[in-house]
Amino acid sequence: MTDLQEMGRRALAGKQMLQKLTAQERNGALFRAADRLVERAEEILTANEKDMEAARSHGMNEGLQDRLKLTKERICAMAEGLRQIAGLPDCIGEVMEEFERPNGLKIAKIRVPMGVIGIIYEARPNVTADAFGLCFKTGSAVILKGGSDALASNMAVVKVLREAVEECGILGDVLQLIADTDRKVTVEFMKLKEYVDLLIPRGSAGLIQSVVENSTIPVIETGTGNCHVYVDRDADLDMAAKIIYNAKTQRIGVCNACESLVIHKDVREAFLPKLKEILESPKVELRGDERVREILPQCIPATEEDYGREYLDYILSLKTVDTLEEAIGHINKYNTKHSECIVTENPEAAEKFLNEVDAACVYWNVSTRFTDGFEFGFGAEIGISTQKLHARGPMGLKEITSYKYVIRGNGQVRP
Amino acid sequence: MTDLQEMGRRALAGKQMLQKLTAQERNGALFRAADRLVERAEEILTANEKDMEAARSHGMNEGLQDRLKLTKERICAMAEGLRQIAGLPDCIGEVMEEFERPNGLKIAKIRVPMGVIGIIYEARPNVTADAFGLCFKTGSAVILKGGSDALASNMAVVKVLREAVEECGILGDVLQLIADTDRKVTVEFMKLKEYVDLLIPRGSAGLIQSVVENSTIPVIETGTGNCHVYVDRDADLDMAAKIIYNAKTQRIGVCNACESLVIHKDVREAFLPKLKEILESPKVELRGDERVREILPQCIPATEEDYGREYLDYILSLKTVDTLEEAIGHINKYNTKHSECIVTENPEAAEKFLNEVDAACVYWNVSTRFTDGFEFGFGAEIGISTQKLHARGPMGLKEITSYKYVIRGNGQVRP
Repeated sequence: MTDLQEMGRRALAGKQMLQKLTAQERNGALFRAADRLVERAEEILTANEKDMEAARSHGMNEGLQDRLKLTKERICAMAEGLRQIAGLPDCIGEVMEEFERPNGLKIAKIRVPMGVIGIIYEARPNVTADAFGLCFKTGSAVILKGGSDALASNMAVVKVLREAVEECGILGDVLQLIADTDRKVTVEFMKLKEYVDLLIPRGSAGLIQSVVENSTIPVIETGTGNCHVYVDRDADLDMAAKIIYNAKTQRIGVCNACESLVIHKDVREAFLPKLKEILESPKVELRGDERVREILPQCIPATEEDYGREYLDYILSLKTVDTLEEAIGHINKYNTKHSECIVTENPEAAEKFLNEVDAACVYWNVSTRFTDGFEFGFGAEIGISTQKLHARGPMGLKEITSYKYVIRGNGQVRP
Repeated sequence: MTDLQEMGRRALAGKQMLQKLTAQERNGALFRAADRLVERAEEILTANEKDMEAARSHGMNEGLQDRLKLTKERICAMAEGLRQIAGLPDCIGEVMEEFERPNGLKIAKIRVPMGVIGIIYEARPNVTADAFGLCFKTGSAVILKGGSDALASNMAVVKVLREAVEECGILGDVLQLIADTDRKVTVEFMKLKEYVDLLIPRGSAGLIQSVVENSTIPVIETGTGNCHVYVDRDADLDMAAKIIYNAKTQRIGVCNACESLVIHKDVREAFLPKLKEILESPKVELRGDERVREILPQCIPATEEDYGREYLDYILSLKTVDTLEEAIGHINKYNTKHSECIVTENPEAAEKFLNEVDAACVYWNVSTRFTDGFEFGFGAEIGISTQKLHARGPMGLKEITSYKYVIRGNGQVRP
């Protein structure tokens, strides 16, 4: 049985040590870790082969097997990811604000590490190195709980990374893996509030739901995206077609893909036949309301449930609206507060949409696929937050830090 | 039985309406609400008298009765609080960051209302107006759950406030009170995640604990403060005495009061007799370790449990350390990450302490009593956050807002 309390104490010691390191020291260890991953790739591949064998014998589907599989190239990509993180600017210690009070108190708001971060994720061993890199870079210790299917791979990756940081004189406990497949341990981990400052679930909606329900640690929810494109009465229809094609088909399994088209009634006739044509290849199944089916009779009727679905598949729901207000109302009712787009040439309509739609990212004449830490120029991404607390939208390095107030005086007391 | 789903839907409608108002319109409604509180004070006092009668017949202690009691003056103070909030600068719509990507995307990070905020608090009816004011000012609808003992008072205050905003043409549902004393309803409220974006508990450690354990809504924990003052080897001992006297005795029942003194062994002899003398009036009970008791034999022995206590009383624990490192280790072990102070004339020792102690506010030669939204110049305060997510330390208006990314383009798609 995993002793989570002991892991918590070790993480705390790791965090306290990390806090005393300079940015150069942290970056040096990240480069070292990257080198060791490549040098010890065989060891990791051997472990991964065990996971793959078990997966095949359990009849895991091919898509999941592909996510689980490591190759020399994929390990090199993991190492390259760590090098890129090391190369990013350091944000720890940044003075975010500074002010002086009339009584002479000098108050500075300083960016500090989060402390100890917990990450619960599913069977993708590349997340192991990535999550370590982002937390380590920002001075936080991390406790990982990966998917059971990837346990051997994750243990091998963690062993290499820990030994690399230890070579640099740093406690290996800045990175710990819960090597236990008992679900009870995972639930207990979600309550390790005394030691863990932030818990991030990465994976399916079911995983995220379970973390939200069980955790007493503050959580950042990531990743569910029921994203809409609204084609306004004043849209450039060629642009609208291009945007929907990209948002729907460029990569279907991601959270910033478009799942639903909302269309102003006045442009149905001009737009829907064109849309049907461009969504022939790759073939996208259309599910629309009655007014869509007047124009596209072959279209499957959409149910209420369709409008709430994140398909992650070659399926698109369609909804006709009479007004911009109705479009905004529909989107605010069904969306997951992730990414929403209006296509229009009318600046007033655009500004109303951008202001009133409640989502992390609101787009005017841009594909929703840009909701991404790299596309935003953050240089890294730990996930896309769909909650409003702490971080919203793409989360880079700064989004997994905290702050403290440092107050300097000369004996001030409160009157 | 309270229909929380229906309250959630109403709050959503309220929030959507609030979002379309200008800052002037919101401030106007706050001034109106302040006026109506004063004009209708009798109505509120009559309701409060009911609560007071019930409290007396239940034998509520005098301290709690005093917190529950309203007077004409206290209602005027509540109104004045609303006017002050109305007079503060508006932060909604603020452009927090703005940048352009190489592909021409213009990305702006804009401050937006949190949405719907839930506040669970104990028997202080003045919090009712205050919480409404802070949320309304920042464009959020609020659902309040106050203490049962104050139910009649809270209902009266909420009625006046709702009618005042309705006079301004705003939906009264921007402010709702759960008028139900069934604990099950409170627990269900903590799970109203579909509608509520943030839940803030204000009150005892027990209340906060219950919210953290039951809520699926993101929570900001407030208010528990086991705050330390560390008297370093290089301290100005007169300053140290003045700071501890202030931090311990100026107001004992507050979270930023000092609960524990950590003292370097080399200054024990010079400092402790002086400390004992100044803490004679008001009389503070001292509980110290063996090395403290060598100097102050009458001092009560401190137990392990003492070092973890937030007394909120005329009691101070004392701990002797050999080094600055030991002081930092002791504080990081026992503190609640609230407010911590070092008294020293040695800048190196100070910087080490400020850097390594993990707390929302770290002080050098300043009383811990300054951890307060007003003392920080925020003009308002909704609580002191002791967690690291979203907001840390004193929370003013900005700390109960969120942000969204607004992305403007001209047809960009992801390659």
